[in-house]
Amino acid sequence: MLFKRLIPVEEAQNILISHTRRITDVEEVELDNALNRVAASDIYAEVNVPNFDRATLDGYAIIAEDVYNASEGNPVRLLLKGYIKAGTYPRNCLSHNEAFRVDTGAPLPKGANTVVPIEYTSEEGGYVLVFRRVPPWANIQWAGEDIARGEIIVQRGTIITPRHVGALAGTGYHKVKVVRKPRVAVFSIGDELITTGSELSPGKIYDINIHTIASLVRENFGEPVILGIARDSPDSILEKLEAGLKIADIVVSTGGSSVGQADFVRMAAENLGAEILFHGVMSKPGKPVFGSKIGDKLYIGLPGNPTSAIVSFMLYVRQVILKMLGVIPIQRLPAKVKLRRREYGEKGRRLYKAAAIKRLSNEFLYESLPASSESISTLSKADAYFIIGEDVEFLDAGTQLDLTPFDANSQPADIFIIGEFSPAILRTIFSTLGDRYAIRYIKRSHEATIMAIKDGIADIAILRSELEGSIKVIRELAIAGDKSKGDVVTALKDIEGVEITLVGSHHSAILRYLNNLAAAVVAPKEFLELYGIKDYSIIGYENIFVYVSGDLKEIVKDAIEKLGNI
Amino acid sequence: MLFKRLIPVEEAQNILISHTRRITDVEEVELDNALNRVAASDIYAEVNVPNFDRATLDGYAIIAEDVYNASEGNPVRLLLKGYIKAGTYPRNCLSHNEAFRVDTGAPLPKGANTVVPIEYTSEEGGYVLVFRRVPPWANIQWAGEDIARGEIIVQRGTIITPRHVGALAGTGYHKVKVVRKPRVAVFSIGDELITTGSELSPGKIYDINIHTIASLVRENFGEPVILGIARDSPDSILEKLEAGLKIADIVVSTGGSSVGQADFVRMAAENLGAEILFHGVMSKPGKPVFGSKIGDKLYIGLPGNPTSAIVSFMLYVRQVILKMLGVIPIQRLPAKVKLRRREYGEKGRRLYKAAAIKRLSNEFLYESLPASSESISTLSKADAYFIIGEDVEFLDAGTQLDLTPFDANSQPADIFIIGEFSPAILRTIFSTLGDRYAIRYIKRSHEATIMAIKDGIADIAILRSELEGSIKVIRELAIAGDKSKGDVVTALKDIEGVEITLVGSHHSAILRYLNNLAAAVVAPKEFLELYGIKDYSIIGYENIFVYVSGDLKEIVKDAIEKLGNI
Repeated sequence: MLFKRLIPVEEAQNILISHTRRITDVEEVELDNALNRVAASDIYAEVNVPNFDRATLDGYAIIAEDVYNASEGNPVRLLLKGYIKAGTYPRNCLSHNEAFRVDTGAPLPKGANTVVPIEYTSEEGGYVLVFRRVPPWANIQWAGEDIARGEIIVQRGTIITPRHVGALAGTGYHKVKVVRKPRVAVFSIGDELITTGSELSPGKIYDINIHTIASLVRENFGEPVILGIARDSPDSILEKLEAGLKIADIVVSTGGSSVGQADFVRMAAENLGAEILFHGVMSKPGKPVFGSKIGDKLYIGLPGNPTSAIVSFMLYVRQVILKMLGVIPIQRLPAKVKLRRREYGEKGRRLYKAAAIKRLSNEFLYESLPASSESISTLSKADAYFIIGEDVEFLDAGTQLDLTPFDANSQPADIFIIGEFSPAILRTIFSTLGDRYAIRYIKRSHEATIMAIKDGIADIAILRSELEGSIKVIRELAIAGDKSKGDVVTALKDIEGVEITLVGSHHSAILRYLNNLAAAVVAPKEFLELYGIKDYSIIGYENIFVYVSGDLKEIVKDAIEKLGNI
Repeated sequence: MLFKRLIPVEEAQNILISHTRRITDVEEVELDNALNRVAASDIYAEVNVPNFDRATLDGYAIIAEDVYNASEGNPVRLLLKGYIKAGTYPRNCLSHNEAFRVDTGAPLPKGANTVVPIEYTSEEGGYVLVFRRVPPWANIQWAGEDIARGEIIVQRGTIITPRHVGALAGTGYHKVKVVRKPRVAVFSIGDELITTGSELSPGKIYDINIHTIASLVRENFGEPVILGIARDSPDSILEKLEAGLKIADIVVSTGGSSVGQADFVRMAAENLGAEILFHGVMSKPGKPVFGSKIGDKLYIGLPGNPTSAIVSFMLYVRQVILKMLGVIPIQRLPAKVKLRRREYGEKGRRLYKAAAIKRLSNEFLYESLPASSESISTLSKADAYFIIGEDVEFLDAGTQLDLTPFDANSQPADIFIIGEFSPAILRTIFSTLGDRYAIRYIKRSHEATIMAIKDGIADIAILRSELEGSIKVIRELAIAGDKSKGDVVTALKDIEGVEITLVGSHHSAILRYLNNLAAAVVAPKEFLELYGIKDYSIIGYENIFVYVSGDLKEIVKDAIEKLGNI
């Protein structure tokens, strides 16, 4: 019976995985205790980061058109109306030829459409002199520009890193739902074993494996349940095994590699009605591995030799724990990244460029993320960074750069979704594909999205214009509020209204309406619904196009077509 | 004053490091809580692994010479004298033409010099038939063969991994001395900040950085002390800063990037008598970093933007924490290893070869470790492994193989010491070089050591024969016990005595003597002293040669010459 048939490593791994059940118990932990825990479900942002339009530097909130002719020799003089500090929310209104001093992070007064940096100004007796023109919408971070309400911030199965903690904190989560840690009962088998701390007598050795295996369980996101030492007898093994099955999700023993002992392990398991899955693997070290199932729990017997036990743990038990947790696969990132296109340096400053990494069979591709330092989403979506030196003007496509991972355990994406933000479309794609793939959504401009498609980096792209083979989705536009009572705020450029205030994001528009800074708002219905606004009328529609590359096309198409108009 | 002079990233790093003090407080933690803590001092083995000579497989303990003529057709018949199980320590004595059945891990009876595997035998009416010859000393693990008493098992500054936990457990440690975690006081600055969990009002944003920085401190082996949010005023910043300096080893704030705020940070620091080290770094993100020293503690102000704060933490605070802990540098291992010489596979089994990795400027070299699965030292000295497939006869030198690190944080060696075990020489080298270098000692045979020198992998080699330029050390040999009362046990081949029992390790010899299985022992004096044996007489000496490559030669030579005879 013993080692009748050694099986290949992969076969043993597949057998164990096929008998592993996902843990469905969820625990809610404080954000500060969430590090290295595994997200139990997709986590969506319920507030925007930021949740208002704010200045990204110290300067003056103004109307861009007022300083169109400003120059060093011919400064424009604006009336200084006040000082808006970060943390306040004034209801001031800015008119032409006026300015408000704003701190970095301060909200903009109504009416302002740009911020002129303080370096290009001077104050003079209640007035501000502006020495340069600034384009409209400069130096403003619009509501939701970093993280948008309705955006997924942590995919189920993510190991929570400091960067995810940041995205969660930014959206106000102080508790997180994580998967309960798999409880792994551990015992050692051997008459020669004694516990550390006791006196060593001749013929005895200290039990090494109970400590190494418990440590490995901890390091692999599980919770060890230490049962101690079983003697070399079926009864003693049976006793530990029963105790382990009662309190743990899986039982792991070490020892019992010798002929007599191996029989005891099998006898004990069979006494409890075990189904023997395999006994012996074509591996060195790590041959005498015993795989069995008792009820709905796995019992894995590892070899007793310390090196064999550790190697076997890493080959078999580790993957079972990760499968129980539903962890998105951990991958070792490459040491180098090859630039897909020219990257520009910045004179006198060393650039740290964050990159999201995607695995494509044995290759790793990257998408560098916007360098905006105001953003937390940049980093929460990144896996690694590369550096462009201080004295570098540009680096050509094809240049190899060192890639430094942010985390000890990287979980690169399988799929990149790039482009326009649509809560409904994204939610559909995540719920359709999220079980099988690690998905990273990266918000990019139309041009950057087209480039990403050309480069083959976008598996799915969400666009405002049609591309051959793309799926058309009709997005309904709606108005909420009473436009007869004042101005209409919107981020949609082609809307006609009594008085239109154009802003940089749908979230900005809706929040201004909700904060009584506008009488009505026009926005896509799917955005209004994010805020629980039910009272709206459809006034039009726009087309969104979803481009899907390769194999995923049919399944995504089906899901999106079921969605209908959004 | 502000950003008067931006300094390069390395300059800022060097300034901070030069003002960082190592933490000297030591904590004793349970072995099971030692994972990812940093060893506070070099840890030496105080017992051997194993602490007796034992069988490495199930079989019969015999005298090799008795079965010299055994073959399938002509088995040798031995009298079965008993069964020695693992965990017992019998005082039986084996004579010619006798055998004891032994389990894997069982001690050998006195007189036995080899173990014949059970597969080559059969039992028959009180006798054992042996169908194959076996060489002397086969299938025996001698006392100290895995880890020798007097050997260093964990170097100061090592981040304790499951494999180190194994080496510590094997040598009986149930507590470990680790460096106290650096306490890092953390606060955020900004009137706009509110804590997660509270209601978000317009103009406010959730404090992201307090959570990301605290998580990063934890992930980098420190202990965060969370002080909360300071308002945008020198007084409020001063209050947090004072509180932090009182309870922590270093204070880190985020925010205060805007012109007004940055002044407040500096004012608060200066109010406490701070020495301003720098203010502004040539980095993007991460420009407005503020470095200062207040008393003997560092206060580092990081930018408030979440991405900048994280990147700056990784560039500056991380290294300060690691320096405080005295951590051996963490290095990212290469993805591939190039075989130094031909490696043989094993038919039908996949080989996992453990390798110790050494960094040589930008190159990484490896020494593959003995595959003996009985060993824990193999893995505690390894950094990574590579695989030789099931169907591979051999792989030629130069073949590139994937290298898989054992740990998330690898600490490869700077220096390999390879060869003969000498507690006195090793202790001298570790105490001379251990402050500056990560040192790995790998016990190898004479032939393997010579090869390692030729391959340029051994920085220091300890040998039994002279090599050009090697340093000669005289090792005194001594006898303890009374040889007139019985036999003399030794691992030295050229000793004359009344009756010599030759064993495979000095530890084996000494333990047999201490366990009253021999009347006297002859061993190097330095080994007898490890066991506290004071009553011995010097009876001779042998020469040990220490080969040192390159730059280290003079310093090692000086230290070893000071040592004198050992």
